[in-house]
Amino acid sequence: MRSLHLRSVAVVGVAMTKFDKHPDRSVEDLARQAVVGALRDAGVEKTGVEAAYVGHLYQGEVLGQRILRGLGFPPIPVLNVENACASGSSALREAWIAVGAGLYDVALVVGAEKMRKGLLQFVDRDLEVAMGNTAPAQYALAGRRHMEEFGTSREQFAQISVKNHRHGCLNPHAQYQTACTLEEVLSSRLIADPLTLLQCCPAGSGAAAVVVATDAVARRLTTLPVWIRAAALRPWMSYFAPTDLTSFGATAVTARDAYAMAGVGPEDLDVVELHDAFTVGELLHCEGLGLCAKGEGGRLVAEGATELAGRIPVNPSGGLLAKGHPLGATGVAQVVELVWHLRGQAGARQVPGARVGLAHSQGGTGLEAGACTVTILGR
Amino acid sequence: MRSLHLRSVAVVGVAMTKFDKHPDRSVEDLARQAVVGALRDAGVEKTGVEAAYVGHLYQGEVLGQRILRGLGFPPIPVLNVENACASGSSALREAWIAVGAGLYDVALVVGAEKMRKGLLQFVDRDLEVAMGNTAPAQYALAGRRHMEEFGTSREQFAQISVKNHRHGCLNPHAQYQTACTLEEVLSSRLIADPLTLLQCCPAGSGAAAVVVATDAVARRLTTLPVWIRAAALRPWMSYFAPTDLTSFGATAVTARDAYAMAGVGPEDLDVVELHDAFTVGELLHCEGLGLCAKGEGGRLVAEGATELAGRIPVNPSGGLLAKGHPLGATGVAQVVELVWHLRGQAGARQVPGARVGLAHSQGGTGLEAGACTVTILGR
Repeated sequence: MRSLHLRSVAVVGVAMTKFDKHPDRSVEDLARQAVVGALRDAGVEKTGVEAAYVGHLYQGEVLGQRILRGLGFPPIPVLNVENACASGSSALREAWIAVGAGLYDVALVVGAEKMRKGLLQFVDRDLEVAMGNTAPAQYALAGRRHMEEFGTSREQFAQISVKNHRHGCLNPHAQYQTACTLEEVLSSRLIADPLTLLQCCPAGSGAAAVVVATDAVARRLTTLPVWIRAAALRPWMSYFAPTDLTSFGATAVTARDAYAMAGVGPEDLDVVELHDAFTVGELLHCEGLGLCAKGEGGRLVAEGATELAGRIPVNPSGGLLAKGHPLGATGVAQVVELVWHLRGQAGARQVPGARVGLAHSQGGTGLEAGACTVTILGR
Repeated sequence: MRSLHLRSVAVVGVAMTKFDKHPDRSVEDLARQAVVGALRDAGVEKTGVEAAYVGHLYQGEVLGQRILRGLGFPPIPVLNVENACASGSSALREAWIAVGAGLYDVALVVGAEKMRKGLLQFVDRDLEVAMGNTAPAQYALAGRRHMEEFGTSREQFAQISVKNHRHGCLNPHAQYQTACTLEEVLSSRLIADPLTLLQCCPAGSGAAAVVVATDAVARRLTTLPVWIRAAALRPWMSYFAPTDLTSFGATAVTARDAYAMAGVGPEDLDVVELHDAFTVGELLHCEGLGLCAKGEGGRLVAEGATELAGRIPVNPSGGLLAKGHPLGATGVAQVVELVWHLRGQAGARQVPGARVGLAHSQGGTGLEAGACTVTILGR
């Protein structure tokens, strides 16, 4: 794909709810909080928004319209988008295309999900999954193979959870703001070897919203525009490359698209938010994004390179592991986090002087149907 | 919204399954038949498609990816779109924007739905609906008011069903290819006065697909390109305008957007496919689209203006009433039908010399959250 025809598009407003169980709040209520916050952050009125793109998985028909009518929005075009755990980032990408194409000057993007028991419907749909090859099992399989091929250790996987929980302690929006030790991670309940409970993301609810605007509007609204320099999308590609159980095929390919579009490489990144639904995933995605060479993910973690103070901080928000993972909200929340860092507004977890950030989402059902997005932001 | 920045985009390939109960076929199977047919019709290989947009309501996660992986597609970007009964047409609109913006030269659009009992989940979600104000009740209310205000008769509503069933007899893709008399329509079971059973669309399954391409590619592929001259989208607006129970607010506003974008008016249309989920809907939407003056819908029908041989043929396919209404498939199937007419390939139901066609979809949950699309095609 080519992006050269698109106008420059900036994120000019961001907000998110705390991710949490939120048993007493509706998805509309959560989403409206994020929308109101993002509009206020942007300094844009409801009447200044020309279109809305809403990502979610399981919240029923016309969620976006339900959210906006309750806020008294004028009747702007609203599109609901589903792309598994990359739904929110896929919605952002559609907004980027439409604003970049000149259809709108200002658009709203929302990601939201209210989790409840039995929500993950796809567990029954795919034969392999029904036979027990669930998401943790798939990640565990990749982890075991990575240990075998590259000498990666259980401790290195566990260290990722320690790091992300430590980051989460600095994030008031995180579902878990509690540190844990390597011993606690390793001794928590075994889910699928080598994954223990504290290496799997929790279920939770929440919402995030961003306002995007074209160049001219962005420069009028803010002195801190954050530019969308690339938004790449790929489908399944299989979780695993055909000949390699230790890669998630889509990540490297989608990242390659995004790097080419943005004209940057992994060496240019200052901060990364990636899809650490499981610790094994973070390690494999670090390799897929090119933050280190193939097989070097264990060493990257052990050396502390992905810590807040490291060479390339990964998941300063706490990631899915500590911040939480309300499916459709996650991809938008990653962008919110990056924008805070690129503006210098990330508080105690600020990556100093961050200029370029990358967000990575992926998800899907079973082994072969899914979606992966890589979004690159720059100030 | 502005479309002046977009490149010209044409529909270069179309196909659909027969709409039917299809109890033994999966939604993926139905969709794949439509995709293969549309590619063949376009003369495009799988490897020539650069992105896919898939509209549906209730077929679960990453439907588009499930459809395409089974056909051996390369890993192109796939987006799943939901916008109630306008899901398919909303997916087409995203493809139009992306190709028009220059991101892709060729994109695939799919609409598909496998119906099963209990599928219409939104009946329980909205308080008014739960209290009995269901879709047929809402349309019936509008119909009663139209009778009161404008003297529209039960026979005029029923005549719409007679017409669309007669059209359906000429369409091999229609779920019902059986004529019915005015007496049969009027004496069928009462659903919500004045609507009888034969004035309500059936439940059915099916799929439709179109290939869209940019100007240069379209002219290489076909001597019969059909241009997308407008694709407008609006949300809820309420089924009814606040002060007028006899209008579906969104239709007129969305049509106004589309007419302005295409630079045409209702007087320029040669053929219309619109959302006749109920006969009352067709009459009200004829008025909303400006095919006649407000209150004149009954006369428009009585005069035969919307018959195949009339001044402005409406629903030559048989419409939702006879062709059927597999939710996500409907908006794409309307475009398929228009393309056949504009190419002169509509067989026994051909509108002679048709040059400009309009497709209208609308849907939603309850009274206030929904979507409406108007797409204008020209040869």
